Amino acid sequence: MSIELISANKSFGGWNKRYRYRSAVLGSDTVFGIYLPPQADQSEPLPVLYWLSGLTCNDENFMHKAGAQKLAAELGVVIVAPDTSPRGEGVPDDPEGAWDFGLGAGFYVNATEQPWAGHYRMYDHVVSELPAVIEANFPVSDQRSISGHSMGGHGALICALKNPGRYQSVSAFAPITNPMDCPWGHKAFGNYLGSDREAWKQWDACELIADAPERLPLLVDQGEADNFLAEQLKPEALEAAAAAAGHPLTLRCQPGYDHSYYFIASFIDDHLRHHARALGRL
Amino acid sequence: MSIELISANKSFGGWNKRYRYRSAVLGSDTVFGIYLPPQADQSEPLPVLYWLSGLTCNDENFMHKAGAQKLAAELGVVIVAPDTSPRGEGVPDDPEGAWDFGLGAGFYVNATEQPWAGHYRMYDHVVSELPAVIEANFPVSDQRSISGHSMGGHGALICALKNPGRYQSVSAFAPITNPMDCPWGHKAFGNYLGSDREAWKQWDACELIADAPERLPLLVDQGEADNFLAEQLKPEALEAAAAAAGHPLTLRCQPGYDHSYYFIASFIDDHLRHHARALGRL
Repeated sequence: MSIELISANKSFGGWNKRYRYRSAVLGSDTVFGIYLPPQADQSEPLPVLYWLSGLTCNDENFMHKAGAQKLAAELGVVIVAPDTSPRGEGVPDDPEGAWDFGLGAGFYVNATEQPWAGHYRMYDHVVSELPAVIEANFPVSDQRSISGHSMGGHGALICALKNPGRYQSVSAFAPITNPMDCPWGHKAFGNYLGSDREAWKQWDACELIADAPERLPLLVDQGEADNFLAEQLKPEALEAAAAAAGHPLTLRCQPGYDHSYYFIASFIDDHLRHHARALGRL
Repeated sequence: MSIELISANKSFGGWNKRYRYRSAVLGSDTVFGIYLPPQADQSEPLPVLYWLSGLTCNDENFMHKAGAQKLAAELGVVIVAPDTSPRGEGVPDDPEGAWDFGLGAGFYVNATEQPWAGHYRMYDHVVSELPAVIEANFPVSDQRSISGHSMGGHGALICALKNPGRYQSVSAFAPITNPMDCPWGHKAFGNYLGSDREAWKQWDACELIADAPERLPLLVDQGEADNFLAEQLKPEALEAAAAAAGHPLTLRCQPGYDHSYYFIASFIDDHLRHHARALGRL
């Protein structure tokens, strides 16, 4: 798998880079961002934190706005940020151009319905294909963690819950906890996965947590002034599901904070330390 | 002067806000961003760091990308980011829509030539009008510092050099040090100020430094991999002018860093501390 460098910017002694490659899984070119801390120049392979962004984002939002590089440089953690959907020629979009479905809104599932199933396979991309690319091309170990925001928080939770042993730690900012029971999820799952709600359960954190074979502690931050809190995000559903399953969850409700990257930036260092401890960097 | 709140996002315990007001100086509405650290809720008035952005930017780039809020929240320093030019109905732009002149490129001068002179008065806006608005509407003191990037670094340097006693400290990232002697400056000064190069001298840091009545130490960071270094920025001209004048200058050349916000973010904390010391917050 050959990867093509798009840009490189020195950042906190390391490098922020973007690469393009042909994704077999997505049937399209795709771009990812990677932060390589200064320790990447040394011999010891570094662990990787995968960051999954939310609706409308691409690989750049987190790298521009979260302010994660400073602490990542201190901790020696690589950060990888994929795009949020397939893109490019032949990739279908929401017929009405909505921002909550289609391009920029892959929901980290493998679509089973047409016309989506040919390209919208962000789950396989994020869990398998991209880590293989990263581990083949950069000085990294197989120690992985995963986090994300909103739709990407949902993605981080389901990737971890469905893949015991694959991640050392997981966290989320304002995740869509229960897509089976919110408008964004209904639209996305209905289109990508079809009308059989039984099939949706394997992509819903609140459903998956009941039978999760691994009990990685979940760290979740949620702003209390988030406009999407009550209708779309539903942290109380995750809280109830975790309690019922006996799954460890630290849910931090942050007064006054909204859904923006200002919220993420304010607490990203706590998440980086959470992951660094699990990755043996703290 | 009434100001209208556009948005408010909680950030590191404080607030990132945007406001719009009718600028008499610019003859247009204008928008500024302000970061109010948590200490703004207390009784003691806080000092203000003014940040001047570069070509193509507006009031948001710095607040989104520099990662300054975390340390500003610790130090108790307010940050204010104005736009980079007048905008709106009736404000003329470069006739060819170029990015290095007109909208987004006010160069922090008071234009004397038509059709620019009616609106392009960013110098008066930044030095006088905006601080008056800030000091009338927020819990701030009259202790001010100024910094900026590229065109905004030029702006910060000339605002400080031309106004003894007005700022406690000044710094710049990759400033246009000698606009009289670079293509960006030739275009902007030629249009805004006319063809008399004598008149340009009062807007050029390398000229102003010779007779500056106040010797505020200049802190300047410059990336060595900056694409604009040799042709547009010319830190060696500032270095020579400061040496000739006996003006204190710390010019830090940063290997590998470019002209982007990744560069700014990597060193913004050093600048914040430089200003906080002068502002009595360290």
